Amino acid sequence: MRILGIDPGIAIVGFGFIDKTGSKLTPVQYGCIQTEAHTDPGLRLKQVYDAACQLIDKYKPDAMAVEKLFFNRNVTTAFTVGQARGVIILAAVQRGIPVGEYTPLQVKQAVVGYGKAEKIQVQEMVRMFLKLSAIPKPDDVADALAVAICHAHSSTLHDKIKEVTKR
Amino acid sequence: MRILGIDPGIAIVGFGFIDKTGSKLTPVQYGCIQTEAHTDPGLRLKQVYDAACQLIDKYKPDAMAVEKLFFNRNVTTAFTVGQARGVIILAAVQRGIPVGEYTPLQVKQAVVGYGKAEKIQVQEMVRMFLKLSAIPKPDDVADALAVAICHAHSSTLHDKIKEVTKR
Repeated sequence: MRILGIDPGIAIVGFGFIDKTGSKLTPVQYGCIQTEAHTDPGLRLKQVYDAACQLIDKYKPDAMAVEKLFFNRNVTTAFTVGQARGVIILAAVQRGIPVGEYTPLQVKQAVVGYGKAEKIQVQEMVRMFLKLSAIPKPDDVADALAVAICHAHSSTLHDKIKEVTKR
Repeated sequence: MRILGIDPGIAIVGFGFIDKTGSKLTPVQYGCIQTEAHTDPGLRLKQVYDAACQLIDKYKPDAMAVEKLFFNRNVTTAFTVGQARGVIILAAVQRGIPVGEYTPLQVKQAVVGYGKAEKIQVQEMVRMFLKLSAIPKPDDVADALAVAICHAHSSTLHDKIKEVTKR
């Protein structure tokens, strides 16, 4: 099963594709989509959408996972990030790819086993799970991989529940 | 010049197409896109996008106008509305249609001539400008027409400035 994790934004969108075989996780491709600050906001949205479509069509994930975002600071930021998130989710739904949404608490719990883990702990666990030599940079990429791992663990859990129910 | 005004949302998107000939404004079509509450959020986004594409392809506006939203209440709402706004702006940009963004203050100033006007005053002015027998319902439709009128007035102003500059 191939999972695409997304950390949405308008300037930087972190993405990470991972393969899950049994309980083993393998990184496939990760990085970020970037848009220029002095470009028309609508055009930036289109650039994010086009790049997301290209990535999805190239790496063909079975599922997409995105963090459920709750900023308590800037509502304007929430709007901008929401818009970018919207066009990325659209790219997935148009291709029939299910989208999982996880709160930051769920991601931390799934990756570190502790809902109040520090950012650096999450990043270090991402590095270990995927057997990477270093923590992926920028943070957006590590965050995208973290939410992909969270989805992988949640789906393992779902599978186990199904198995138990079948018995 | 045909203008599409949009009041974005995930449950209801208000839309209004108006034609501007000289200083005369004529309503072309208005109404709302609605999505069901108990549907997958990603699917609702796709429904909004598909409906926006259909409307744009049918009525072929020369410009789109959307309110710049600043909620100071609910950040989760800001995210949801932002996502819907994102896919609608995408639909316009994909077709090369310029998107104008206006603050609520600009809309009120353009429609009523007073930035602190009440909602009902804005709605009544929308009715008068477009020579409608009643205020369009729900509020989202009247709001969409208001932002379209705002864009019409702003572009008239731009034309006038251009004329003066040419002299």
